[in-house]
Amino acid sequence: MSPLRFEVVAECPVTGARAGLLHTPHGVVETPVFMPVGTQASVKGLTQRDLAGELDVRILLANTYHLFLRPGHEVIRRLGGLHRFMNWPRALLTDSGGYQVFSLDSLRRVTDDGVLFRSHLNGDEHLFTPESTVDIQLAFGSDILMALDECLPYPVSHDAARQSMHRTIHWAHAAFDHYRRQIARSADQPIGALFPIVQGSMFPDLRRQCASALVELDAPGYAVGGLSVGEPRALSLEMVELTLPLLPRRRPRYVMGVGMPEELPEYVARGADMMDCVLPSRNARNGCLFTSRGRLVIKQARYRDDPAPVDEACSCYTCRNYSRAYLRHLFQAGEMLFSTLATLHNLTHYLDIMRRLRQAIIFGSFPDSLRLVRPAPGEVD
Amino acid sequence: MSPLRFEVVAECPVTGARAGLLHTPHGVVETPVFMPVGTQASVKGLTQRDLAGELDVRILLANTYHLFLRPGHEVIRRLGGLHRFMNWPRALLTDSGGYQVFSLDSLRRVTDDGVLFRSHLNGDEHLFTPESTVDIQLAFGSDILMALDECLPYPVSHDAARQSMHRTIHWAHAAFDHYRRQIARSADQPIGALFPIVQGSMFPDLRRQCASALVELDAPGYAVGGLSVGEPRALSLEMVELTLPLLPRRRPRYVMGVGMPEELPEYVARGADMMDCVLPSRNARNGCLFTSRGRLVIKQARYRDDPAPVDEACSCYTCRNYSRAYLRHLFQAGEMLFSTLATLHNLTHYLDIMRRLRQAIIFGSFPDSLRLVRPAPGEVD
Repeated sequence: MSPLRFEVVAECPVTGARAGLLHTPHGVVETPVFMPVGTQASVKGLTQRDLAGELDVRILLANTYHLFLRPGHEVIRRLGGLHRFMNWPRALLTDSGGYQVFSLDSLRRVTDDGVLFRSHLNGDEHLFTPESTVDIQLAFGSDILMALDECLPYPVSHDAARQSMHRTIHWAHAAFDHYRRQIARSADQPIGALFPIVQGSMFPDLRRQCASALVELDAPGYAVGGLSVGEPRALSLEMVELTLPLLPRRRPRYVMGVGMPEELPEYVARGADMMDCVLPSRNARNGCLFTSRGRLVIKQARYRDDPAPVDEACSCYTCRNYSRAYLRHLFQAGEMLFSTLATLHNLTHYLDIMRRLRQAIIFGSFPDSLRLVRPAPGEVD
Repeated sequence: MSPLRFEVVAECPVTGARAGLLHTPHGVVETPVFMPVGTQASVKGLTQRDLAGELDVRILLANTYHLFLRPGHEVIRRLGGLHRFMNWPRALLTDSGGYQVFSLDSLRRVTDDGVLFRSHLNGDEHLFTPESTVDIQLAFGSDILMALDECLPYPVSHDAARQSMHRTIHWAHAAFDHYRRQIARSADQPIGALFPIVQGSMFPDLRRQCASALVELDAPGYAVGGLSVGEPRALSLEMVELTLPLLPRRRPRYVMGVGMPEELPEYVARGADMMDCVLPSRNARNGCLFTSRGRLVIKQARYRDDPAPVDEACSCYTCRNYSRAYLRHLFQAGEMLFSTLATLHNLTHYLDIMRRLRQAIIFGSFPDSLRLVRPAPGEVD
């Protein structure tokens, strides 16, 4: 019995878009949803009050790899779990650690049992297995756990992608076997839901094969991984377009690691319920602000005397209170307040897009509004 | 006619401590007051909401030298002044720029007219005069402006200190002459109050001579500068003790650049109404937290599993919401949220001390409570 319940409340009659409610042990999440990334149990520069109050974030993502290394899952378990540790009362999803491990230069060895790697912090050697990453995420007390997957770079050969895809399927089965044994052992204790991850690089046959093998797991939700690894945008969309219809219609579908603001509606149109990306927060820190009229690069001299807010159409704390001129000054002066204010703005921009898309699906205007809600991809003119 | 009005509401019958109300064009400030430092028009890591809401700060300090160089006082003037630029609705004090200029390696030349220096940002040469620094601060629209002073290192010879003290007096007269001409020219426009600064290094005769010369200016308030430049703490206190009684009793007295939490009551006991210091915010960023039981160095391994707040006796946002273990994790992980949370805590600690001292003065219990409110100077045991 999964503690996660997903309810489809509206479906677009033309596209694959749907609006839903994801019931978690830490509250209800309205989908489609964008999940801000709190890699090290912190969305950089934001307090819990910013996230739950101003932004009304319902679900956050945190990284298993980083938190396993520091402070360690046993420390987090002893302190009452990740929610209590980081004082986050709402839903949490933790990734499998796979993406980070496979991005490491010091990756040691991949076997059918798992992956041996060296910490980027101190060089210590560690082994992630499908079982151990489940245990780590259970120690966190995550609402949604991700099964260990192998995440390949782009491009790879069909043969390499096929072998890797089979390993991911094998690992997913091992993770679910272990997870179900753990559930049986902790009957009265709430335990998060486990999602497997569809891989297969950019090969349609492999994606299909992986999806149908994972569907056998009867998981409470499914993810599509291995995207945003350097492939052209059209390919990522194509993989999502062919994979999502193969997944159970009544289960939430999570497209990992996407995307730019103008891409969000594209994924939603293809049936994505959940997305995450570091772009809004990372770009914010680098001085790139997303607006309804395109991207705004705050360091430009044209903003030096500009009393206007970042985006007239935005109602975030930053736009309500500060001018482009002040934000440019903070950025130029290296003041950390810039990162906080810019992150607040960019996340608001993402969350607002998702809220508008959801409304459009519910009101039956999604296909019409698709073009309207799509933000300008270029720079502010 | 000064726009600043100071009201003494209670005086300690035993010490020199007094409680007052400083009426500024941007609200009333309860004294004695500690003013957080927003060097570049930002208290590092804190939003206006943190400062005016959570901390209830009534007056902030900003730095003339930094804001003159970047973004420039003309930019700030065009954007409606410093209050509007940084979205700070309450009182602002700006320093004279003297302290920073005299700390520069690239200081060029001091004459009776002013001081020639090179920007630490790009090496450009600039001249600060008593008149120009008044004009810069008028462009900011500061509630309290400071007159240009010469700030010497410690130790210096009596002869050097005497010459410098005479130059500071000369500059103060030049600043007031210029300021009063500016007031006359802008009759209907509100204009901030100008404070001169008593110098004289650690020589009692020079301090006395400087104070009595500056009193002739009939200024709306007075500052004691040239402290916290490397001298022993006892000497700083001695200088304040002998200088403050020479200043008009009904005018606010500002002791610049002090101090540690345990020193605040000492200055208040000697009649200080206003203080400022970068210690609470700078120490916060370095992981040193002030508590009612002494200093807490967050990186220590003993806090790894510690679920307690930084200070059980503190009611700040950080102590209400986060554990030492989580704060240690943020610090170790280099997360900027640490600086925000630590600064919120340390400033709360300073402001709470000042609020308690003020209450004690009003209730007539200041001499008794002096020992009780004095925080432990050592480390948490």
